[in-house]
Amino acid sequence: MAASIEFFFDFSSPYSYLACEQIEALAARHGRGVDYQPTLLGAVFRVSGMRPLTEIPVKGDYSRHDFLRSARYAGLPFVMPEPFPISTVQAARACHVLRAQAPALLREFVQRAFRAYFVQGRNLAEAEVLRAVLDESGAPGARVLEDTGRPEVKEELKRAVEASIARGVFGAPFFFIDGEPFWGNDRLPQMERWLASGPF
Amino acid sequence: MAASIEFFFDFSSPYSYLACEQIEALAARHGRGVDYQPTLLGAVFRVSGMRPLTEIPVKGDYSRHDFLRSARYAGLPFVMPEPFPISTVQAARACHVLRAQAPALLREFVQRAFRAYFVQGRNLAEAEVLRAVLDESGAPGARVLEDTGRPEVKEELKRAVEASIARGVFGAPFFFIDGEPFWGNDRLPQMERWLASGPF
Repeated sequence: MAASIEFFFDFSSPYSYLACEQIEALAARHGRGVDYQPTLLGAVFRVSGMRPLTEIPVKGDYSRHDFLRSARYAGLPFVMPEPFPISTVQAARACHVLRAQAPALLREFVQRAFRAYFVQGRNLAEAEVLRAVLDESGAPGARVLEDTGRPEVKEELKRAVEASIARGVFGAPFFFIDGEPFWGNDRLPQMERWLASGPF
Repeated sequence: MAASIEFFFDFSSPYSYLACEQIEALAARHGRGVDYQPTLLGAVFRVSGMRPLTEIPVKGDYSRHDFLRSARYAGLPFVMPEPFPISTVQAARACHVLRAQAPALLREFVQRAFRAYFVQGRNLAEAEVLRAVLDESGAPGARVLEDTGRPEVKEELKRAVEASIARGVFGAPFFFIDGEPFWGNDRLPQMERWLASGPF
């Protein structure tokens, strides 16, 4: 069986949300799975010297307009959340806990977490919201949340983010297909061709 | 007749080259023309605090890879030029001279200048190369080049770049369709839908 598509995302990234809503179908069309890998744009941006899109002069205003238009183009609901951006470290740790304890729920949680923030405007940085979204995903929210505080979970996420940066992940969404890197929701069409007819 | 698509570009921008090779056909499919507007990313980046893609840590390596892959995806030739980036102020001034003296040649010159740099590896920052490309476009290269040194031409480009920044142009390629802004070669599909079926 062909390797899964590695999907690096940050729960506070609008384009990661748009990609998340499309990647499972894209992967399935080509007999692939999806490997969900939370990353932290704050740590990534420290290396590249970048900033959140919406904080860049002139580009920030366009970005807010483009989030909405790109969602409409993809036929997806999108409501610009406030506050934005938010800390997603707790939600990312929850992914690592789920991967270890209930891997079958990881995809469900990731999708629901993105929709909670970018459609329902619920602040994932708040422990109560995060617990509720975990519960809604079929996970034992309170226990998962407690486990996110364990030193080995914190260390695991830290190592995973560092490893992703070492592999060249400088933003989100970021994908690898059999080692080939693709950055951005805009690269889904190139990924589709890569999967359909091989490297080009 | 519907307004032309405004196309802002920098001759040193790989994605501007890729867009330039596709925008005429896209515009023609919807009964539009193209209004060629040279800008200067150096000046634009001073406002947004951005840098040339290839100079950003980690992202730079990916970008060089993506230029080539995106060209192959579009079915276009592309050879990474050296040196890169280059000063494009003289070539941009030549556009303004042509617009005033021989507007029918502007499109031909812009297309040939992009191909000279990104396909043939000719350094547009060198006066002799620029003159040759102007000649090849059917323009009197020596005379146009001389006119690029006139104070009013320098002032006109400076004002045009400042005006574009004031309108929100923070990178290249950048397009306006009836006032709606689109940034990046990646937005051509959204532009196509916008032109085909109206605002979304």
